[in-house]
Amino acid sequence: MLATIGYLGPKGTFTKLAVDAAFNGEHKESYATIPECIDAVEHEEIDIAVVPLENAIEGTVQLTVDYLVHQVRLPIVAEIVVPIQQHLLVQPTFQGSLGDITEVHSHSHAIAQCHQYLHQSLPEAKIQYTTSTGKAAEIVSKSDLSIAAIGNKLAAEVYGLKLLQENIHDYSNNHTRFVVLCKDETKLKIKHPVSIEKTSMLISLPSDQAGALHQVLSAFAWRKMSLSKIESRPMKTGLGNYFFIIDVDQPYDDVLFPGVKGELEALGCNVTIMGTYPVYKLTI
Amino acid sequence: MLATIGYLGPKGTFTKLAVDAAFNGEHKESYATIPECIDAVEHEEIDIAVVPLENAIEGTVQLTVDYLVHQVRLPIVAEIVVPIQQHLLVQPTFQGSLGDITEVHSHSHAIAQCHQYLHQSLPEAKIQYTTSTGKAAEIVSKSDLSIAAIGNKLAAEVYGLKLLQENIHDYSNNHTRFVVLCKDETKLKIKHPVSIEKTSMLISLPSDQAGALHQVLSAFAWRKMSLSKIESRPMKTGLGNYFFIIDVDQPYDDVLFPGVKGELEALGCNVTIMGTYPVYKLTI
Repeated sequence: MLATIGYLGPKGTFTKLAVDAAFNGEHKESYATIPECIDAVEHEEIDIAVVPLENAIEGTVQLTVDYLVHQVRLPIVAEIVVPIQQHLLVQPTFQGSLGDITEVHSHSHAIAQCHQYLHQSLPEAKIQYTTSTGKAAEIVSKSDLSIAAIGNKLAAEVYGLKLLQENIHDYSNNHTRFVVLCKDETKLKIKHPVSIEKTSMLISLPSDQAGALHQVLSAFAWRKMSLSKIESRPMKTGLGNYFFIIDVDQPYDDVLFPGVKGELEALGCNVTIMGTYPVYKLTI
Repeated sequence: MLATIGYLGPKGTFTKLAVDAAFNGEHKESYATIPECIDAVEHEEIDIAVVPLENAIEGTVQLTVDYLVHQVRLPIVAEIVVPIQQHLLVQPTFQGSLGDITEVHSHSHAIAQCHQYLHQSLPEAKIQYTTSTGKAAEIVSKSDLSIAAIGNKLAAEVYGLKLLQENIHDYSNNHTRFVVLCKDETKLKIKHPVSIEKTSMLISLPSDQAGALHQVLSAFAWRKMSLSKIESRPMKTGLGNYFFIIDVDQPYDDVLFPGVKGELEALGCNVTIMGTYPVYKLTI
């Protein structure tokens, strides 16, 4: 039976683009918020959830991390990485030049990502904010005016728009990361080569004394385990109490990881393995 | 002369609430994006910018951090911390009960923050997404239907709504952090007691070899300098290259900080002091 994949919608967004790049043929269902999408897997209404972890468009990594840490502890089974590519979308019948565009519609984060471009190439156009890049494309598709949207190729495709100018984002090396969550890993079938394998850990410190984090990192450092990400997040028990999300650039094994976990627990830390999983770097 | 303060708008948002709590009498100007607000200080159109650093509503910390790191190096001169408080707002003439509310309007992050509440208390209400909590309040103020908005007290005040239910957010210990940026610190006048003093540093590593971060933290640890935040961010020169934002819980001094900086530079790190500044924890 084909798996059902839930993703942070609406259609025409970067999450949908990542889901389409990674998966084929499965039934795909759009959710309006990250918690709703995660809950649907938890309640077994769907098999797999794909939500942003580092995404400059739809939302904050914090919401995903916090929900996984505090509410629903679903394992991370894969990570999908796609480049951010923003284009200027207009109606297919648009024949004018950039100077004719009176309004640019998009999500505030997409507008911010194309800040320099808009400043230089469309200084006169009025900026209109929308709830998503997909919504902006929809507005442009229904308008009789010379207006444009900022969005990705999928939004252009879904709403029948053409790309007046490609790759208008200010930074070319920007990527977004999505995590894939599911209870039954046998349902996950991604037919792409694996870039690397990673393990994500959640570590809470017994106190915020000077040097506690340094001590925690010692357990990784002397084993020559390389960390690709470390982030402190508040515990929600008040300002000043933090936990750490650490990404280790290797899959879980039965020697090094239990060694780290044992040592950290002896120091009074709480250690949770959030997942050990392959990373798929896809082009879109 | 009174200073002009730019903030991430529109009116009725959490940033405006923080600005109103911290400042009195100054001229306040709303900006639609974080880069526009920062640019306005850089180009000396305004004196002070207040933008979110850790804010679950208007946007991502990443946008602020990345813009300060890659585009405009304005010093951080203060931090404002306010609690997140979400309320259910209805028209003042609304006489019904919760069960009569057919729609709830708000920004997707505010909806997500009240996820449990909506699930339990308003399971039948249709969720409608808006570009900000202020916009949601505006929609409710103009509607003839039994609809509600999720937003803060300022949104209620600005749009003449009443609080049908207070503090409907799922976590009570959630806070948002804002940074205050300006070129001329003499223009900054915040008349509140200072909670703590902090120093934010930007450190890039010469390589992402195992243990490099551990080595960096050693420079702080043996001096017993306490870190309240550490976060790795990609360098935009491709995936895998990271820099670190580190918050040290003490003001800059002429002995410890230059010592840390000198040692880290000897290891091949780039070290930038993003600011040394007071933190104001305000109630709203």
